[in-house]
Amino acid sequence: MNNFVFHNPTKLVFGKGTVEKIGEYLKKDGIKKVLLLYGGGSIKKNGVYEKVVRSLTEHGIEKVEVSGVRPNPVLSKVHEAIEVARKEQVQAILAVGGGSVVDSAKAVAAGFYYEGDIWDAFIGKYNIKKALPLYAILTMSATGTEMNGNAVVTNEKTGEKFYFGSKYTYPVLSIVDPTTQFSLPKEQVVYGAIDAISHVMEYYFDTVGSSLIDRIDEGIIKTLIETTEIILKEPENYEARTNYCLATTLALNGLTGMGTNGGDWSSHELEHSISALKPEVAHGAGLAIIFPAWLTYVKDKISDKLISFGKHILNLKDEITPERTIKELKNWYSSIGAPISLKEVGIKKDDIDFLVEHATKHAPFGTVISLNKEDIRKIYEIALE
Amino acid sequence: MNNFVFHNPTKLVFGKGTVEKIGEYLKKDGIKKVLLLYGGGSIKKNGVYEKVVRSLTEHGIEKVEVSGVRPNPVLSKVHEAIEVARKEQVQAILAVGGGSVVDSAKAVAAGFYYEGDIWDAFIGKYNIKKALPLYAILTMSATGTEMNGNAVVTNEKTGEKFYFGSKYTYPVLSIVDPTTQFSLPKEQVVYGAIDAISHVMEYYFDTVGSSLIDRIDEGIIKTLIETTEIILKEPENYEARTNYCLATTLALNGLTGMGTNGGDWSSHELEHSISALKPEVAHGAGLAIIFPAWLTYVKDKISDKLISFGKHILNLKDEITPERTIKELKNWYSSIGAPISLKEVGIKKDDIDFLVEHATKHAPFGTVISLNKEDIRKIYEIALE
Repeated sequence: MNNFVFHNPTKLVFGKGTVEKIGEYLKKDGIKKVLLLYGGGSIKKNGVYEKVVRSLTEHGIEKVEVSGVRPNPVLSKVHEAIEVARKEQVQAILAVGGGSVVDSAKAVAAGFYYEGDIWDAFIGKYNIKKALPLYAILTMSATGTEMNGNAVVTNEKTGEKFYFGSKYTYPVLSIVDPTTQFSLPKEQVVYGAIDAISHVMEYYFDTVGSSLIDRIDEGIIKTLIETTEIILKEPENYEARTNYCLATTLALNGLTGMGTNGGDWSSHELEHSISALKPEVAHGAGLAIIFPAWLTYVKDKISDKLISFGKHILNLKDEITPERTIKELKNWYSSIGAPISLKEVGIKKDDIDFLVEHATKHAPFGTVISLNKEDIRKIYEIALE
Repeated sequence: MNNFVFHNPTKLVFGKGTVEKIGEYLKKDGIKKVLLLYGGGSIKKNGVYEKVVRSLTEHGIEKVEVSGVRPNPVLSKVHEAIEVARKEQVQAILAVGGGSVVDSAKAVAAGFYYEGDIWDAFIGKYNIKKALPLYAILTMSATGTEMNGNAVVTNEKTGEKFYFGSKYTYPVLSIVDPTTQFSLPKEQVVYGAIDAISHVMEYYFDTVGSSLIDRIDEGIIKTLIETTEIILKEPENYEARTNYCLATTLALNGLTGMGTNGGDWSSHELEHSISALKPEVAHGAGLAIIFPAWLTYVKDKISDKLISFGKHILNLKDEITPERTIKELKNWYSSIGAPISLKEVGIKKDDIDFLVEHATKHAPFGTVISLNKEDIRKIYEIALE
């Protein structure tokens, strides 16, 4: 186990009927005016918007709204919200939505105090020193953003999809009410699970770790597999939803990273190029394709871990090999409706050059194998069909 | 799963060579003068004291010392330290030692600002509203105090051993360097493990929980069993120590309690009476005796959970029954040198009246079965031999 520092100050408020408590929490913290940031309006359909507005009103909290944050959130919307937040002199950001809304809100919270373009934080030109307090109401569990300081945003002008992580952008408070997710499309349940499973796998397959965190990792992934299967059949199964939601939070709140080298993260790097080529491919779908291909490429370096994965997570009996574990993982992804090859999402052999060029910009990356251009090409080739 | 709020602001600094960073952390937080609280001097033997003092000096941090905190820490020492802290106008408490030192430091930190007797916080007469910042260097892993707001102290005048829990007494920062524990007596390794296992079991056997946290619980207990066996043979096995130490921290930092009814805690209540009768019996030893007796008494209410415990934690195959799980747990406790009956620690049939009277003061307690005087008597009788 490596040395580590763990510090996660987010207050997590979890369970049914918690959305309506937002006004009370804000008031207790002395907040009188917020920027309410949300997406395309699904929170108006499922009643969350109404509950939030009522709670704010009841506690005398003023709001200004910025809506229209889209999946794969863009920098221009962040700029727009920063301008509103400054003009209206809000005291906090209240993000209501999924990962894209919360990630955008983190950039807005940090951008509020930064004189330059907050994109600087994504490209390493600005080290965040201050941010407005951020409150989040999560309506789609997947990325774990509700309990970490990370944000991923795309700069539409350059086509770059970058991230930052800062201790100043952990939400002060995050509310997760699993009942608000009953009406999510099945696709989002599937890709949310794969996203969270991939977060845990980035740490699980790291070259340094510990038996304790490995077991916790195994428990989180097993729970995600089991609950996804239940939710696809019974979307309103509360017990399955709560376990699913909490598992996605714990997947990336620092717990699974304890004592590791910080995770491998090659699969995430490789997936970003898929997004760049085909923005309509969900992040979770891209990960379902690329992670098993990466596993196949590095399998000789992590064969013991792959066997453990097969045994403890996939419940395979006898004759467990690294290859079989990877095959069974792909089978499961396929069984819940995720693509497992580039071809399935319309990416052809001729597109590989683009993917390789795009991904190589940040190469070398990865801790299991430090990937260079040739490695990257081979992984995309494995992922092809 | 029940609704819950999780908020743990402690920064955990974990790994070898971290003790000497204390001065740097204090300086960064603007602390110029601390009360250094410690126990009977083992930190002088193992070199921790010297490292701490050197680090403080190097960073220009003044200290006043109060030493002599003993296992099962007492209120008079807390009073003494509060007086010194006030007189010397320290800005923070720095606790260096095991659970008893850190628990005492929490009472000192809260008592500093309270005009009455801080014992009021233990008996529910005072709800803590403020505390000095607390920094901890943990030199014996067991109670989990390094990452929660709880403190247990004994009032020598009344013989009462009570606890408080407050959000104001979470350590700001806790340093855990597993190498400082290489020289601990074997007994403390054994009782530390049993204490931490018991913390997890109080939640695991609660009537409400979740499959996710159950799996995490199982991973923590399995790790404690496995690493204790290794440490008893190889006290300087760093990998085993790190896993052991981190498992004891995670056992009681809020993670294992997520979504439960708050845990059963009957066994802890019943153990306090053993301490009251025989203060020389370590808390972990008392728990090794009483927890299996409680399990036996309530086994019909938690039979599925006991079977899961046998299967997933103790790795029992075929024909797993609640009774067999309890028996195997006792066997394991016995195998590492812990007592598993009251007789083994010199408590006889005639002493049971005292234990019953003492424990009944707080009855009824427990969530699995709400225990009254008769139940309590039966459990002590089961524990007798």
